[in-house]
Amino acid sequence: MNCIFCKIIDKEIESNIVYESNNIIAFLDTDPINEGHILIVPKKHYLDIEELPSEVLNEIMELSQRIIKVLKTIYNPNGYSIMQNGGEFNEIGHFHLHIFPRYQNDGFGWKCNEKEINVSQKIARNIRKAL
Amino acid sequence: MNCIFCKIIDKEIESNIVYESNNIIAFLDTDPINEGHILIVPKKHYLDIEELPSEVLNEIMELSQRIIKVLKTIYNPNGYSIMQNGGEFNEIGHFHLHIFPRYQNDGFGWKCNEKEINVSQKIARNIRKAL
Repeated sequence: MNCIFCKIIDKEIESNIVYESNNIIAFLDTDPINEGHILIVPKKHYLDIEELPSEVLNEIMELSQRIIKVLKTIYNPNGYSIMQNGGEFNEIGHFHLHIFPRYQNDGFGWKCNEKEINVSQKIARNIRKAL
Repeated sequence: MNCIFCKIIDKEIESNIVYESNNIIAFLDTDPINEGHILIVPKKHYLDIEELPSEVLNEIMELSQRIIKVLKTIYNPNGYSIMQNGGEFNEIGHFHLHIFPRYQNDGFGWKCNEKEINVSQKIARNIRKAL
């Protein structure tokens, strides 16, 4: 499979690894938002979060807690962000969780359109019934 | 405590609830990126992810998997995003995980500055040693 992250996992491509276990790997993002921007990646090639077995997802989240603690110690940031884009918005096609320290005036933010989006009990009911 | 999310949890403020258990609650964001934008919130008032007990974090992540499946079924989006802002970037001061469906041309994106940020084995080594 022609996946950059699979090649990183197989050590065919070099990366700046910060953690590795049987199930997951974490390395520096090559295009970081801020210094210390890390990607946590399952070693098996999954696309979206619902495909991950719970033990793998739980291991990713436990590591994210440890990484946040370490980023706070090393960088003393004003905060952090954790993000994961799924489906067509995953440009690599292999699940990855972004974690990075944040600073006031670091220029990072969400870009949104101005459209009014609906919020209602009806919408909540549809989702609640399907869960 | 004067926390909006604590008041939602205590039912002092109305919200559009999609899920509730002993430990967590999920409701529609009142300022959604797209229809179906949900916040998952632990009932206890934590700020940052490393404060959450594993069983609560695992329950949040398991629910996020179920929510993504349901959003895909209801909205047939091109993808989704999951995000969590910590520290000073959590405007409510109570941990919450954003989940919302995504569409091509929905106007959502990351706003970054153009600064060059360092990536190196040295940075990775510092983090690796501290983990």
